[in-house]
Amino acid sequence: MITSLVTGGAGFIGSHVVKHCLDMQHRVVVLDDLSGGFEDHIPEGAIFIKGSITDEVLVAELFANYKFDYVYHLAAYAAEGLSHFIRRFNYNNNLVGSINLINESVKHKVKCFVFTSSIAVYGAGQLPMREDMVPQPEDPYGVSKYAVELDLKAAHEMFGLNYVVFRPHNVYGENQNIGDKYRNVIGIFMNQIMQGLPLTIFGDGTQTRAFSYIDDVAIPIAKSVDTPAAFNQVFNIGADKPYSVNELATVVSDALNAEVKINHLQARNEVMHAYSDHSKAHSVFGQGSGISLKEGITRMADWAKRVGARKSKEFSNIEIHEKLPQGWEQITANNPAVPA
Amino acid sequence: MITSLVTGGAGFIGSHVVKHCLDMQHRVVVLDDLSGGFEDHIPEGAIFIKGSITDEVLVAELFANYKFDYVYHLAAYAAEGLSHFIRRFNYNNNLVGSINLINESVKHKVKCFVFTSSIAVYGAGQLPMREDMVPQPEDPYGVSKYAVELDLKAAHEMFGLNYVVFRPHNVYGENQNIGDKYRNVIGIFMNQIMQGLPLTIFGDGTQTRAFSYIDDVAIPIAKSVDTPAAFNQVFNIGADKPYSVNELATVVSDALNAEVKINHLQARNEVMHAYSDHSKAHSVFGQGSGISLKEGITRMADWAKRVGARKSKEFSNIEIHEKLPQGWEQITANNPAVPA
Repeated sequence: MITSLVTGGAGFIGSHVVKHCLDMQHRVVVLDDLSGGFEDHIPEGAIFIKGSITDEVLVAELFANYKFDYVYHLAAYAAEGLSHFIRRFNYNNNLVGSINLINESVKHKVKCFVFTSSIAVYGAGQLPMREDMVPQPEDPYGVSKYAVELDLKAAHEMFGLNYVVFRPHNVYGENQNIGDKYRNVIGIFMNQIMQGLPLTIFGDGTQTRAFSYIDDVAIPIAKSVDTPAAFNQVFNIGADKPYSVNELATVVSDALNAEVKINHLQARNEVMHAYSDHSKAHSVFGQGSGISLKEGITRMADWAKRVGARKSKEFSNIEIHEKLPQGWEQITANNPAVPA
Repeated sequence: MITSLVTGGAGFIGSHVVKHCLDMQHRVVVLDDLSGGFEDHIPEGAIFIKGSITDEVLVAELFANYKFDYVYHLAAYAAEGLSHFIRRFNYNNNLVGSINLINESVKHKVKCFVFTSSIAVYGAGQLPMREDMVPQPEDPYGVSKYAVELDLKAAHEMFGLNYVVFRPHNVYGENQNIGDKYRNVIGIFMNQIMQGLPLTIFGDGTQTRAFSYIDDVAIPIAKSVDTPAAFNQVFNIGADKPYSVNELATVVSDALNAEVKINHLQARNEVMHAYSDHSKAHSVFGQGSGISLKEGITRMADWAKRVGARKSKEFSNIEIHEKLPQGWEQITANNPAVPA
């Protein structure tokens, strides 16, 4: 029997990866500290260990006990904009925690280490973002993700550890925390509509993003361990078709049977059009589910109506207060560039 | 009065930077955990605090107490080849420790943060190494150094923290630990000669490096805080003239009045010719001391004869034993590519 570890398996993308791994008949162990995830998102049939990837003793015990064939590493503190103000926390969680997993994966000869990185590694370079560009991350979150990518490459060269790196973008779907005030424009829109509030948009709303339905991200991640052509490669992953934030507002409002009410705020310093090239992923994993934005949003809205919003956990351990934006609700309310 | 923090000030390059800062009339605080340095290398007149950059409470206290104008960050565990086997230790020391300093430098509005990086950030790319190349480090040590460089750039963009990054190579001189078995070909040669042993050279000894006398590295580092043109820039730093390892063996033997005895071992997988372009540093800092290899080696040899070799501290906390070379004496005995 195949045994897989899914870190962050109580989180948004992680819980979907767990489900697909269970469908693939893996025995699945979830390691999650519930800092961002919810225990009831973990699909039935998975073994849940509450704990942190930064706990090197626990991590070593799990590897010794379960003899994992595969590691899917999705645990991260993914608030990119906040990472400037929580640098030490960011590197401890997102880099040193990952290193604990890489160390044990080398020692226990894991067959493949699947890592969910981010388009944050690219920095504000040329578009479209392509995997053959040399990344130049510009914030501590992107730096930590890129450092893990480079460390995996070094571990492969030195020890033969196989890896697959995914750089998803703008992912949405069921199990996404729509109460998260730090990120995820679609969840924030849904939350605003359910509270009878207008949707906040920075600027005129013509900025575009290709919003990616969770299946188009979580399924290739889960299946990558059975795809040798993917080994030791990096893949952008997500949707191709861009929509403006105004169009998105309409689709989300329709899905929740609400009138479109928008509160345009002053434009922010953000990239107008951000998009990735996915031809490499398509050539290895195929073309994706074909689920349209309207259909994906409808699925997510049905789920959101059922479960409602959950309160975002406040981050209590800010390291640098200078320039910390007041009220992250407003500052990140619709930052569609922030990866999930 | 100007107050400067020099981390790693009991180490090789650090102790020289302390000396030049004292010459510049700075009040100098040295923070060093003596894991690689020696208390008696710290020049008289500096305030010595024994402790680690990874101790965030201590670091915060020092910044609060001393109100540093400048931070010279030279503390690192710099055994590049060993970093594959001590990944967590490497990132904790070389990255998270650096982040503690960056956090406090932002909070206390330090005027300039001088960071000693490494040519290890470049990876095995094109030669000569130039600062306008995008680094692609290939081992955990290089990844941690590059991550700090990127984090400093992000801290500058967000908070206005000024920085200067230096990437030295093949540095030698007084206060270098000639008993260090993990690195530094010149020190290893001197130690072998003083023990009456032949010099070990991997392969035919025609591989070349530009060995850099300490003054040509430590003086620009110290003076960089008074060089606004250097702010928020990256500089390769070191010597230009390449010598073969065979030529080096002759120069070192001559300086110690010893016959040249060489034990050629099987060639290793190493770069034959590694060299940096220093035109950027020359344009900002001038042409350097003009001290020849013969003169620099003579100075170092006179010092080494006086103090003798000290035992290298064994590294006791190896995380991965697989592929760890047996006997680092032989493996790194003359790896001139390993930066000091």
